[in-house]
Amino acid sequence: MSWTLNEVSKHKTSESCWVIIKNKVYDVTSFLNEHPGGAAIILKYAGRDATAVYEPIHPADALEKHLPKSKHLGPVNTEAAGALEAAVRNRKKTKDEVRMEEAHKYKPKLSHILSLRDMEDVAKRVLPHKAYAYYSSSTEDTISKGENARAFARFFFKARVMRPVNQCDPATTILGFKSSIPVFVSGAAMAKLAHPDGELNITRGCAAQGIIQMVSSNASYSYADIAQAMAPEQTLFFQLYKHKDDAIALQRIREIETLGYKAIFLTVDAVVPSKREFDIRAPWYLEDLERGAPSPFLEEQADSLQGTSFGTAGGLIVNDDRDMTWEKTIPWLRSVTKLPIVIKGIQCVEDAILAAKAGVDGILISNHGGRQLDYSFPPLEVLYRLRKGHPEVFKHMEVYIDGGITRGTDVLKAICLGATAVGLGRAYLYAQGAYGVGGVKRITHILETEIVTAMRLMGASRIEDLTPELVERVDWQPEVKARL
Amino acid sequence: MSWTLNEVSKHKTSESCWVIIKNKVYDVTSFLNEHPGGAAIILKYAGRDATAVYEPIHPADALEKHLPKSKHLGPVNTEAAGALEAAVRNRKKTKDEVRMEEAHKYKPKLSHILSLRDMEDVAKRVLPHKAYAYYSSSTEDTISKGENARAFARFFFKARVMRPVNQCDPATTILGFKSSIPVFVSGAAMAKLAHPDGELNITRGCAAQGIIQMVSSNASYSYADIAQAMAPEQTLFFQLYKHKDDAIALQRIREIETLGYKAIFLTVDAVVPSKREFDIRAPWYLEDLERGAPSPFLEEQADSLQGTSFGTAGGLIVNDDRDMTWEKTIPWLRSVTKLPIVIKGIQCVEDAILAAKAGVDGILISNHGGRQLDYSFPPLEVLYRLRKGHPEVFKHMEVYIDGGITRGTDVLKAICLGATAVGLGRAYLYAQGAYGVGGVKRITHILETEIVTAMRLMGASRIEDLTPELVERVDWQPEVKARL
Amino acid sequence: MSWTLNEVSKHKTSESCWVIIKNKVYDVTSFLNEHPGGAAIILKYAGRDATAVYEPIHPADALEKHLPKSKHLGPVNTEAAGALEAAVRNRKKTKDEVRMEEAHKYKPKLSHILSLRDMEDVAKRVLPHKAYAYYSSSTEDTISKGENARAFARFFFKARVMRPVNQCDPATTILGFKSSIPVFVSGAAMAKLAHPDGELNITRGCAAQGIIQMVSSNASYSYADIAQAMAPEQTLFFQLYKHKDDAIALQRIREIETLGYKAIFLTVDAVVPSKREFDIRAPWYLEDLERGAPSPFLEEQADSLQGTSFGTAGGLIVNDDRDMTWEKTIPWLRSVTKLPIVIKGIQCVEDAILAAKAGVDGILISNHGGRQLDYSFPPLEVLYRLRKGHPEVFKHMEVYIDGGITRGTDVLKAICLGATAVGLGRAYLYAQGAYGVGGVKRITHILETEIVTAMRLMGASRIEDLTPELVERVDWQPEVKARL
Amino acid sequence: MSWTLNEVSKHKTSESCWVIIKNKVYDVTSFLNEHPGGAAIILKYAGRDATAVYEPIHPADALEKHLPKSKHLGPVNTEAAGALEAAVRNRKKTKDEVRMEEAHKYKPKLSHILSLRDMEDVAKRVLPHKAYAYYSSSTEDTISKGENARAFARFFFKARVMRPVNQCDPATTILGFKSSIPVFVSGAAMAKLAHPDGELNITRGCAAQGIIQMVSSNASYSYADIAQAMAPEQTLFFQLYKHKDDAIALQRIREIETLGYKAIFLTVDAVVPSKREFDIRAPWYLEDLERGAPSPFLEEQADSLQGTSFGTAGGLIVNDDRDMTWEKTIPWLRSVTKLPIVIKGIQCVEDAILAAKAGVDGILISNHGGRQLDYSFPPLEVLYRLRKGHPEVFKHMEVYIDGGITRGTDVLKAICLGATAVGLGRAYLYAQGAYGVGGVKRITHILETEIVTAMRLMGASRIEDLTPELVERVDWQPEVKARL
Repeated sequence: MSWTLNEVSKHKTSESCWVIIKNKVYDVTSFLNEHPGGAAIILKYAGRDATAVYEPIHPADALEKHLPKSKHLGPVNTEAAGALEAAVRNRKKTKDEVRMEEAHKYKPKLSHILSLRDMEDVAKRVLPHKAYAYYSSSTEDTISKGENARAFARFFFKARVMRPVNQCDPATTILGFKSSIPVFVSGAAMAKLAHPDGELNITRGCAAQGIIQMVSSNASYSYADIAQAMAPEQTLFFQLYKHKDDAIALQRIREIETLGYKAIFLTVDAVVPSKREFDIRAPWYLEDLERGAPSPFLEEQADSLQGTSFGTAGGLIVNDDRDMTWEKTIPWLRSVTKLPIVIKGIQCVEDAILAAKAGVDGILISNHGGRQLDYSFPPLEVLYRLRKGHPEVFKHMEVYIDGGITRGTDVLKAICLGATAVGLGRAYLYAQGAYGVGGVKRITHILETEIVTAMRLMGASRIEDLTPELVERVDWQPEVKARL
Repeated sequence: MSWTLNEVSKHKTSESCWVIIKNKVYDVTSFLNEHPGGAAIILKYAGRDATAVYEPIHPADALEKHLPKSKHLGPVNTEAAGALEAAVRNRKKTKDEVRMEEAHKYKPKLSHILSLRDMEDVAKRVLPHKAYAYYSSSTEDTISKGENARAFARFFFKARVMRPVNQCDPATTILGFKSSIPVFVSGAAMAKLAHPDGELNITRGCAAQGIIQMVSSNASYSYADIAQAMAPEQTLFFQLYKHKDDAIALQRIREIETLGYKAIFLTVDAVVPSKREFDIRAPWYLEDLERGAPSPFLEEQADSLQGTSFGTAGGLIVNDDRDMTWEKTIPWLRSVTKLPIVIKGIQCVEDAILAAKAGVDGILISNHGGRQLDYSFPPLEVLYRLRKGHPEVFKHMEVYIDGGITRGTDVLKAICLGATAVGLGRAYLYAQGAYGVGGVKRITHILETEIVTAMRLMGASRIEDLTPELVERVDWQPEVKARL
Repeated sequence: MSWTLNEVSKHKTSESCWVIIKNKVYDVTSFLNEHPGGAAIILKYAGRDATAVYEPIHPADALEKHLPKSKHLGPVNTEAAGALEAAVRNRKKTKDEVRMEEAHKYKPKLSHILSLRDMEDVAKRVLPHKAYAYYSSSTEDTISKGENARAFARFFFKARVMRPVNQCDPATTILGFKSSIPVFVSGAAMAKLAHPDGELNITRGCAAQGIIQMVSSNASYSYADIAQAMAPEQTLFFQLYKHKDDAIALQRIREIETLGYKAIFLTVDAVVPSKREFDIRAPWYLEDLERGAPSPFLEEQADSLQGTSFGTAGGLIVNDDRDMTWEKTIPWLRSVTKLPIVIKGIQCVEDAILAAKAGVDGILISNHGGRQLDYSFPPLEVLYRLRKGHPEVFKHMEVYIDGGITRGTDVLKAICLGATAVGLGRAYLYAQGAYGVGGVKRITHILETEIVTAMRLMGASRIEDLTPELVERVDWQPEVKARL
Repeated sequence: MSWTLNEVSKHKTSESCWVIIKNKVYDVTSFLNEHPGGAAIILKYAGRDATAVYEPIHPADALEKHLPKSKHLGPVNTEAAGALEAAVRNRKKTKDEVRMEEAHKYKPKLSHILSLRDMEDVAKRVLPHKAYAYYSSSTEDTISKGENARAFARFFFKARVMRPVNQCDPATTILGFKSSIPVFVSGAAMAKLAHPDGELNITRGCAAQGIIQMVSSNASYSYADIAQAMAPEQTLFFQLYKHKDDAIALQRIREIETLGYKAIFLTVDAVVPSKREFDIRAPWYLEDLERGAPSPFLEEQADSLQGTSFGTAGGLIVNDDRDMTWEKTIPWLRSVTKLPIVIKGIQCVEDAILAAKAGVDGILISNHGGRQLDYSFPPLEVLYRLRKGHPEVFKHMEVYIDGGITRGTDVLKAICLGATAVGLGRAYLYAQGAYGVGGVKRITHILETEIVTAMRLMGASRIEDLTPELVERVDWQPEVKARL
């Protein structure tokens, strides 16, 4: 059986809520309260076609996984399909879309992108506002995001000369897996917001450049689709947001084990959503943009932040485990999987030591790119303190950092201070959004070139040559206007 | 008997000075020299209706309290009342009023206010210039105001992970009185300048959100009116400016005891008025605005600052006690009241220790929001030094700070360093001015949300979990363009 | 006998060079090579009336002193006098003069000047460009000028409360002479550039406010004229630039002794002129301004800075003693005068100690307001180091500082750190230029008000209460955008 | 025999590649792969006249040296010569040339250039964009370039007074050769890009001012031409980029020995090209400028930085020795020449000590003006650490620094900290480009004047008086807006 638009349109309340996705009708009434993004956003499209807003932020298998088959009500009829198609075709472009089209015309050639900052500059101009807001935003006063980057500027090189560097090899291994440079893609979600191929762009670009991708639990392609896109010998890691229900968490682990993911990065710095104000404001901004003026003021009875989703990503973690502990969670995880376990989101020396004691395989020192707790310590500073005060920790597990990295020299500073590798997230979201797979390859190539050049100029020909003696933390804050 | 405008207008000198307030005539001749704001401002309205300038800065009972009944000369006659009403009705709007009306049209919805800074931004646009100038101004080079805030940026969190935080409770007590979050409203005067309900907005908003209001001696509503607005179980504290005449001071204490105020915050950092230049300039600015150009230069014989009132608030403290001492004042205060005593305006570690020795119940480390001595130490730095050097002090009394707080994370830094609670003043003046009671509730709710979120992300589920180990003072100054 | 313009005009070379000053003819041929400002500037006016450029920078007795009577050739004739007067009368205003006239119309009332910075802002607008350039300029990159001021921002107050401050007296003595506040006017030359009454404005204003003026060797009024302007009981000090010829130097000392000057401040930080680029550029700027465009480029054979005068003041010190020593100069000075001797221009702790050993009565720690050696240490920092490391020095002599002071709190910081008083130079030049004697009184009154208010807010009621414990040097650099 | 343009135009591929330079035809086919700048740039002009792009960056003897005589095919014929001349004559000016012509009209008189910064400002306006981009650019985030200069701002003078300074002599010797001031011209290549006389301007200016020029291996005049331009008694040093083939390197050394160069500065900080983004972008900028708009975006298949030349200078060092060591290279160099050997490009204390142990005659602490490894330590900071920790090193060899110097006071800070002399590169490129030999003389004269003035104001009359006690590193970062 197939549905008319009129029939569907009757089901537009929380008592009976239907939506159309890609010409198929779904009864999502019982799912309203389980939706990570909240019921309100679904009800906004109740009784209507929701394809345009659904697609950029959901993996293709989302409804399959989360909605019982009995609620798949079947297709709309031919007339309805035609009407929906016509509606899409005739839709007037939004002002944001018009802006993007214009911006794309003067996008630089990829070969003219010389640095990761160039890439971000282009992304800022050509990406949908909503995507750029979600990718770039950070918490409240954006201090940690800024200081993550500024921290690198306090470390200078004591370059050595008169050392043979004609042969120079930046390759390394991460958890035993080969990487052409000591860089991986840190968990980066919602890539489809900026490009239809989304996370697949990153997978393909990583394959071409020989680096490892960590796939987010909140990827906008399914874990299976991404695994499907892997090249032979390619390595994927998995960023786990642990569900509060162990059984559901286990199901997710089994799925990614089966798909061939090689390690689990357990996220521990995002147990609740944070307030990323630029992201929260994005829809208001777009509304005002369409209107061509700020909203006129209308009195209202609003006294709570409770109702807001805390932005695009806020809802994604409402079901996450907020009561994880070293004593309970790590042993459980060890007991259910043989994959290497890395704790993602260590923010101080004390927890790094606890992680080593807990026997994990690695830690990713990270404050979520400044997207969670504002004023969390810059990862490079935590790494520096850890290396200086507790060098033995580095013998028991691998240590990574992410946050604020934009140059090959940034990577090398972290490696000198004991990191095995560093992660970049936003840079890859910008790159795939602006240029697809080509962008991903380009920025990886830029990093590799910067790394090799700087290694040679420091007198280092192998990763092993990168030692703490080559860097010094200075007591002044260099001016880095362009960085932040 | 009732008066004609003509009769009143004859009394316009310091020999015989009458004014009309709300259609009633008062002989204020003998009061001219006692007026805290100086005689000049009264004489400007001598023989005329002064209601418009009187109302926004005086409690309703001001004339009752300060002027003997014999000087209440009775009402104007009907014709006069009509003329005055017509004058008000026909008055041309000032340019500042026109600006405000326009600004109100595009004031954001309250739900779009995401931070205390958003609230200040709106207040700056929609408040009368005079109110904004009085609220926002600080002394001379505004260094202390700025550094109060910048100090918070030097403290970073060493967030802990893998701790259960699903249950998280930010409630605490202040002097034994419950508070939903470790925040109170610090003494904030002249609220009527920006909103007709003035301090009552704050009282009602605090009731709704479960926090405590400290009422200023210089409130523009009477202590009784404010007490009247209290909800059951609500707590009010009183900010005492001690009169130089102990008897008058005692009278004020008895009044607020009777009205149910629960503690006395004795102000010690404002024994003389300071030079708040932005505030002093406000009337000149408004004059130039009306004229549409800067005043042309006319030679004059002016050689003294003595004659200026040092701004809106200057005159309020001319009768305050400038000779308070630890030896004399505290024992006296103890002897006349059983209310808890807190010293408001401690600015260094040495005085914090003296206060503990004097046996007071608490101290509020404060430099009056940078409104008194410029270059007074930032309160957070004083707290940090006190906690580090003299942890025992915190066992003998409660310690609070105010000044420069704009975020939940700011609150938590102070609590980690030993404060029981923190005060905010300006933020509440802005909020009530811009949105009335709704504004007060909104910013309290924002603070609560920020506090709970940050506590969870730091691994803290109760106020007791907030310890000095969770913060570290860094040796670089983060960039906080947006804060100041 | 009297001269025609035609006759005078024949003497326009270095072989025979006559000029007309105030309708009198002088033969300055033999003086050309002795002119402190160089021969070139005189030759530019050879054979012509030079009154307009001569007057603003020379004391009335300059020609009397420096030119033998035989070279005073007598007056021009009546016709010539008339022609010269007509030339002055008909002279077209320069663009700079037009600008000044317009600026004067909107000069604020003196009572609206709230701070020394306000005064400087007005001066910048209403003074002749040449005067403002000479007063405000400093050496090369203007680092010392800026850092002199920024240094104050690193010292915060640890204000004390609960101390009796109703009575508060900021009076002190300098070298035994009374001063209403611990402030004096530091040597400030060429005041006539900005106001016809020049240094006399300062003398009269100091009398009114009860502070001491140090008169520069390069004052544009004669020492006698200034002494003449003194009020009874008024104190003047003398800033001595020692001539390389001891006999001439002695003559100058005898003159000022006779006139009643009370102390000698021997300048030691200006043995050669420095490069004050803003000042040097002032005439070029004015030429371009008249022309309405930058000069077109013409090839030239110029390869030397030797020929430039190093700006307005450069030439003044060509005859100064460049070979002064502790061993020779101080004993000589002691042997020729009984006046107290102060060394002006001490720039490091080591020389402060040498000065104490040399038995002088005081030192003025100063880098000439940043006008001599750029990157010379900020005086406040030198004072701080001296007080901390060598407190005994303060028992043997008085210590003063100047440079960078704009607020009463700046004064108090220096006094807390051991200074007897502080000097201000530029501020008084700006004030007298913008408002004459009224300006001088106004800024002194502002300083007094700021000092008394801050003393009370710090818990100090007398100068003796100002001790090092009340200030602390902080390890961060406060933001002081407005100061510099 | 002579060639027609048509005949030449047939040879435009990598199989047979001819070019015309100054009306002569060359077969460069076999040279394509040896061209330091890469084959691509030659092929762009294959079969055509390449004079205009060849001349500004190649010494006149480049083809003589590098191309066998058999490949010199002889002149074009008369008609061709006429056509080429006409083409040059009729060529439409580029927008960059038009801009330069206009800028030259309002170039300041040389006597109005007061500082090295003035000179740079003029150069920025009047030089070809490509020249300015090459001269001014530095690596990636330009941190080292900026911090090289900012480091000087952290060193202040503790000036001494009361010392005889009338006689003041800034002369010194470098490796035993006289220098009028402790300043030399550091290796500065490609001077012809900005002025037809290129490096010869510098040679002639140095002769006039009595300072030493270090000639770059990459000079755009031949070493012989430059030697030819020497005045009697003039000293030239040679900056050696060592070829990877020792025999070729030796040939170059023999050549410059014969020509009379007096020392070898072996460059060790530039074994590979770096990424100077402003320089790389220069040709793209010029293309967009001609077009009057940014390039429209065209999809392309570009995935590599490999193909780019890394800017103007990139290709120059492809044949350099990347495997130099202390053990091998220094002894070899010592064995082949008697000239003094200086290592140019020492970037840390450890290597300074190794250099002393290797027995070289001097080191130039340098990070190539921030043009090689970004975040390499500022040379002044390395010098400071070396002087403080290892004063004995200065007894064994001479120590120089370059990078960030713009003032005589900068020079003196380095000399106080133990340097024998300092080098400047960019400043001389700007000066010769903007004003030819006059510019070179002017900035040297400015430096001398600044040095002598500052020495006197510091109490120093000879270079020997400049000791570490006269400077102090401060713990705050002065504001130097104008410097960077």
